Amino acid sequence: MVADPTWFTEASDELGVGFSLKLRDKLHEETSNYQTIAVYATETFGRLMTIDGLVMLTDRDNFVYHEMMTHPAIFAHGQVKNVVIIGGGDCGTLREVLKHRHIESVAQIDIDERVTRVAERYFPRLTESNDDPRAHLAFTDGVAWMAGADGGSVDLIIIDSTDPIGPAEGLFNEAFYRQCHRVLAPRGMLVQQSESPLAHAALIRDMHGGLARAGFAATHLLSFPQPCYPTGWWSATLAARDDPALAMPAAELNFHTEYYTPAMHHAAFSQPAFMQRILAGA
Amino acid sequence: MVADPTWFTEASDELGVGFSLKLRDKLHEETSNYQTIAVYATETFGRLMTIDGLVMLTDRDNFVYHEMMTHPAIFAHGQVKNVVIIGGGDCGTLREVLKHRHIESVAQIDIDERVTRVAERYFPRLTESNDDPRAHLAFTDGVAWMAGADGGSVDLIIIDSTDPIGPAEGLFNEAFYRQCHRVLAPRGMLVQQSESPLAHAALIRDMHGGLARAGFAATHLLSFPQPCYPTGWWSATLAARDDPALAMPAAELNFHTEYYTPAMHHAAFSQPAFMQRILAGA
Repeated sequence: MVADPTWFTEASDELGVGFSLKLRDKLHEETSNYQTIAVYATETFGRLMTIDGLVMLTDRDNFVYHEMMTHPAIFAHGQVKNVVIIGGGDCGTLREVLKHRHIESVAQIDIDERVTRVAERYFPRLTESNDDPRAHLAFTDGVAWMAGADGGSVDLIIIDSTDPIGPAEGLFNEAFYRQCHRVLAPRGMLVQQSESPLAHAALIRDMHGGLARAGFAATHLLSFPQPCYPTGWWSATLAARDDPALAMPAAELNFHTEYYTPAMHHAAFSQPAFMQRILAGA
Repeated sequence: MVADPTWFTEASDELGVGFSLKLRDKLHEETSNYQTIAVYATETFGRLMTIDGLVMLTDRDNFVYHEMMTHPAIFAHGQVKNVVIIGGGDCGTLREVLKHRHIESVAQIDIDERVTRVAERYFPRLTESNDDPRAHLAFTDGVAWMAGADGGSVDLIIIDSTDPIGPAEGLFNEAFYRQCHRVLAPRGMLVQQSESPLAHAALIRDMHGGLARAGFAATHLLSFPQPCYPTGWWSATLAARDDPALAMPAAELNFHTEYYTPAMHHAAFSQPAFMQRILAGA
């Protein structure tokens, strides 16, 4: 679609939309055992990481995604001690989780160690907490890891994956959700990135249905802007193993954020009218 | 930037971002006395209207913008009878305003009649209320109109313009806000599209400062997704002439919406942490 090498463009024929960032340089490109990872310097969004030509994150706007994948679920649970992140190799989600001092252990399970090594080199702010003694990084398949994990051993599972095509496909189905349900402790929760409310409403409906069939007592959709992803409008799905009541966020945060606030926590749970209707039919 | 004629792309060197929609056909193009208006059929977003190469609206996502430019301000005021829309030539804002049965009169003041005529032909859903006896369309300059309007004659001014460059530049400054303040009745309100929270934070801060200097008692930022505009994240600024207390939205709407709900009303007033800090310094 784009002939001009001074712009990076992700365009989807299926979605009919494209997003472009003006580039300064390509800083890195490698093909790991799983995918092709590239890093660019953009003119206005800082650095950009792509995997197989799809935008993963930028310096400028990753704060929204990483904060919304973590703080709402942690506060909604209220007593998280043990966390597992499936995917999340750039370590931005790990960093946000570790801001909660009461959390005792965070395991990050990403299949591709190269994503983490590239992030350490080109996105050092995202990986700044990797040496926290509570952080445990493993580079293995998330589906297999979950199948082998002890039942009832985890308070919060965060599924921070790429789109539900390719390597991450196995993370978006009822069989995987059943394993997650088994691994969660009583009152445990799961949160998973769930694509664009505008472009992927059918996927969101299917995810909520699959989670319910897998035994989760309640599901919620969290919506937020994400400029670098298709349509600029993104979501996370929060599922509660048992009690559908959600704890309240702290009135005042004891750590720095750029997007998340207690008010934004409540705002993110509100659904547009069209999405209310879609979820009511899920 | 884009060499492929099967995609429409709006790319800004200044912002360093681009947005593209896959096209089926160009349906219309004309140069009016003020600007070049084009209409395309896209693959996944219905029809697209552009002005001078910039996206104005699409069938698929205009509902967010038009609902959020109208319903929050109308409910926050609580007793709107007379409305003036500056700009808004596509008539989508007019249609939303007229859903409120208690509103008695709506004047739409757009400099370019051709935008409305093109919308009538290619976006008939947006113009479906143009024959409402409460609607009054005038095609003249909004700044001059406001300077000539009677003081204290309008409950709500909606400034639904293009970007603050070119024809709409005169709608984004303190002198114009002073005229609006004069024309507003006691307890009157103004709402204006105010660009992207991520990309235009300095403009938003300046707008809020200009409104305060023009005499408005309080300003609020409303944020919402808008996939077809740069960064996919947009805002409206609401300013209250007098009493900073805002009325509550109706508990249940008596008209159909796709985005707006009473919960989304409250959600839209919540600010990300970075925007709280910017507005605190405005």
